[in-house]
Amino acid sequence: MECTREKRYLPYNKWDADTLLHLQAQAANSPYQLHYHLHPISGLVNDPNGFSYFNGAYHLFYQSYPFGAVHGLKSWVHFKSQDLVNWTNLGLAVEPDTMADSHGAYSGSAREIDGRLFLMYTGNHRDENWVRTPYQIGAWMTKDGKVSDKTILFKNPDHITEHFRDPQILKQNDTYYAILGAQDKAEKHGHIDIWKSQDLKNWEELGFLDMGTEPMGYMIECPNIVRVDGKVVVIFCPQGLDKKIADYDNVYPDMYIIADDIDFENHKLINPGKLHNLDKGFDVYATQAFNAPDGHAYEVSWVGLPDTTYPTDDENWANCLSQVKELVIKDDKLIQKPVKAMRALRQDEEQVSDPIISEKAGQQYELKLKIAQGQTGNLHLAANEDLTNSLQIKFDTQNGKLVLDRAQAGQAVAVDHGTSRETSLVANKDLELDIFVDHSLIEVFVNGGEEVLTGRYFADQANPKIAFEQNTAYTGQLWQMKTIL
Amino acid sequence: MECTREKRYLPYNKWDADTLLHLQAQAANSPYQLHYHLHPISGLVNDPNGFSYFNGAYHLFYQSYPFGAVHGLKSWVHFKSQDLVNWTNLGLAVEPDTMADSHGAYSGSAREIDGRLFLMYTGNHRDENWVRTPYQIGAWMTKDGKVSDKTILFKNPDHITEHFRDPQILKQNDTYYAILGAQDKAEKHGHIDIWKSQDLKNWEELGFLDMGTEPMGYMIECPNIVRVDGKVVVIFCPQGLDKKIADYDNVYPDMYIIADDIDFENHKLINPGKLHNLDKGFDVYATQAFNAPDGHAYEVSWVGLPDTTYPTDDENWANCLSQVKELVIKDDKLIQKPVKAMRALRQDEEQVSDPIISEKAGQQYELKLKIAQGQTGNLHLAANEDLTNSLQIKFDTQNGKLVLDRAQAGQAVAVDHGTSRETSLVANKDLELDIFVDHSLIEVFVNGGEEVLTGRYFADQANPKIAFEQNTAYTGQLWQMKTIL
Repeated sequence: MECTREKRYLPYNKWDADTLLHLQAQAANSPYQLHYHLHPISGLVNDPNGFSYFNGAYHLFYQSYPFGAVHGLKSWVHFKSQDLVNWTNLGLAVEPDTMADSHGAYSGSAREIDGRLFLMYTGNHRDENWVRTPYQIGAWMTKDGKVSDKTILFKNPDHITEHFRDPQILKQNDTYYAILGAQDKAEKHGHIDIWKSQDLKNWEELGFLDMGTEPMGYMIECPNIVRVDGKVVVIFCPQGLDKKIADYDNVYPDMYIIADDIDFENHKLINPGKLHNLDKGFDVYATQAFNAPDGHAYEVSWVGLPDTTYPTDDENWANCLSQVKELVIKDDKLIQKPVKAMRALRQDEEQVSDPIISEKAGQQYELKLKIAQGQTGNLHLAANEDLTNSLQIKFDTQNGKLVLDRAQAGQAVAVDHGTSRETSLVANKDLELDIFVDHSLIEVFVNGGEEVLTGRYFADQANPKIAFEQNTAYTGQLWQMKTIL
Repeated sequence: MECTREKRYLPYNKWDADTLLHLQAQAANSPYQLHYHLHPISGLVNDPNGFSYFNGAYHLFYQSYPFGAVHGLKSWVHFKSQDLVNWTNLGLAVEPDTMADSHGAYSGSAREIDGRLFLMYTGNHRDENWVRTPYQIGAWMTKDGKVSDKTILFKNPDHITEHFRDPQILKQNDTYYAILGAQDKAEKHGHIDIWKSQDLKNWEELGFLDMGTEPMGYMIECPNIVRVDGKVVVIFCPQGLDKKIADYDNVYPDMYIIADDIDFENHKLINPGKLHNLDKGFDVYATQAFNAPDGHAYEVSWVGLPDTTYPTDDENWANCLSQVKELVIKDDKLIQKPVKAMRALRQDEEQVSDPIISEKAGQQYELKLKIAQGQTGNLHLAANEDLTNSLQIKFDTQNGKLVLDRAQAGQAVAVDHGTSRETSLVANKDLELDIFVDHSLIEVFVNGGEEVLTGRYFADQANPKIAFEQNTAYTGQLWQMKTIL
């Protein structure tokens, strides 16, 4: 597709339905298409939005540009689930159809308020000179899925640039708070800006969250607060963060801080810990987490990065969402675990113990391994017969090291940022891996979720093999995974 | 939607994509939408098409008009499955994009031939005076889902009217045969017309299948031959059939004949039996069956009828497909059974034995009952608290009678053809019912599939109750059913 600005921002009603039907079929027929993760119906998806519980079900939306693998005119597409694994696609939900979101219904959050779902998101508006105004918008979804009553809540105040977006709506006692990603005008640094309201109509800025003395890059996107095990976790995406402040490999990181609490009124964290990378893999961004009524904290991420091209761009679709994960805290770090219902996708269980784990595993499985300590090895996934083309997991349990390497796994992705990702482990310990593969996505849960490495890969889908390169002492199970959508 | 002819036959590229996205969301959000049966992504579906096995998977298409609940410009939408229950939507597959199918890619069949899927279907063409020519078209689908090489195979011969459609491609020894629904010019009667070809290019008419002395109405639609337990079963839809020849209740019936064999060359059945109604319910039509490589015969039906309106027309979508059923023959009759993988949709099993089976069953379940003989009773499904609004199954096991009654089940459907359907059973026998409910669809398998009663119903989805009106001696299980799409 040509990517002229005019074409990218063409109203949806200027596209023809035949083109859309063809784009939908093209995405559905792609060999790289995912089958148990939320993926594009057509075009490009990015941030998860509005992750919430309402009217007896989980709700999740994503940013969608339906007409190609580019960041064009965005809308929200709606999914619903009883178990956070099996999702029903309910289609277009928030459309760029007002002045305030004329150039995109951008990211935001949702919360049940008095029997309706309140959506708070950023409307992207540009004037005839292409000058942007970010409007923060409130809208209401009723139980029948209809979204209406869009209202402009506030704009960027004078001290904040046009980079002001991604509101998360929160409630504490009887007061609503919103946190937003923001760039200040004076220094062009990234911030988390805090607002408050009693009635969801009149909003007042409280100020930037105190993140310490070091600047958080030139912009923060997708700030998100969730309470986990009595602590407050702030998840956010600092863009342009100096690697001396916190190291990361991807173009932009998705990071978190754990604090004892947050004082919204004084916009500060109580006893904040250090910066952590949320995911040690290649492609996680824009994570959204919320506290569900069942007492658990759940998160979901965009698997995709800004300013990055992917091989499926040639097929007019791009990106996906991660599986939903449950969050707990251990030793001042987040533990990220598959949710319980993921087990219900398992079928055709095989006990595995040979160096060749499977000659015909394909690309839609879960592989759970316990690798005995004291070993160094290399696990090949999505491998051809002689293992020269594969996605590799290299481990050294003596020195405590794990590497996810996609250099030999088919088509290249974002090689400027390296083709492997490394994470350190506790040395001299057995290694537990819970690996989820879905055609072009791998999610590796290490030692019960102490680390997660997520990445897209674009190997020949005819490569069916899983094998250790060396004789390796391990036990494991392999399951084929059911299709959910 | 206005139903002007011009609008109904507007090319897909004259519709705008925003309208389509809204129609898709509207269909997805409908409270009547089905969740474990194939249903419209938007608009109207009718006949199943191209039911086949190819490239390691089952394939099934349906007739689709994406832009409303009317019979407009039709295309084929493609679904794929490993187990005949969990289907993946692969989107638009055969489009009305040539002269020969300019006014609709109508119904047809599919068969794997030399590593590709051969599609044989009717192209509906109308000239500027709206005079119709039915072209029988061949096309090829490759393993990547792309359909190309459309070729006109033949038109209606001189002795057949414009009503000439729905080819089923068959192979016997090294010869291809096609059977089609046809209306002769001389008497305007319905027939099954048989053609043959050695190369799929040059086709020769063999003649009308001998159906006996009685005329089969004014037209036969969707003729289908499948081999079951060593016999030949001919399934077809005679329109305008005299009820003295075979009784039926729906506007048009879906019927079958069992014969020892078929002699294509002499276009006759060997020792044909009598006419049977395939389904004793309200809405089954256009059934397609085929012999799968696993040795079983499977069928799937349109649940919907021609010339019939349904309440969801107001929501711009209509109809669905039945579940796939396995066919066997017993006592010269078809037995229709759920396929094995349906069991994998079951969750939350409850043993039931009280007169009130469930106060909160909802509308997405399987209910399996064994009702002891010698009882008369009334089972209420989708019922409100006091059972005044419900879908009813009335049984009399002494006299051998079962009635499916939708008179009190919410919005009315096709009341001119009655609000209940009755089937007779062997008297003085225990009654086994396997009942599948999916929001607006009920499929009742009686005594292991000796009879099936299928019907749409449009009850208030808040009616959650299942109860016997009387104290009834029975045992049973109730399962909630998983969502497949």
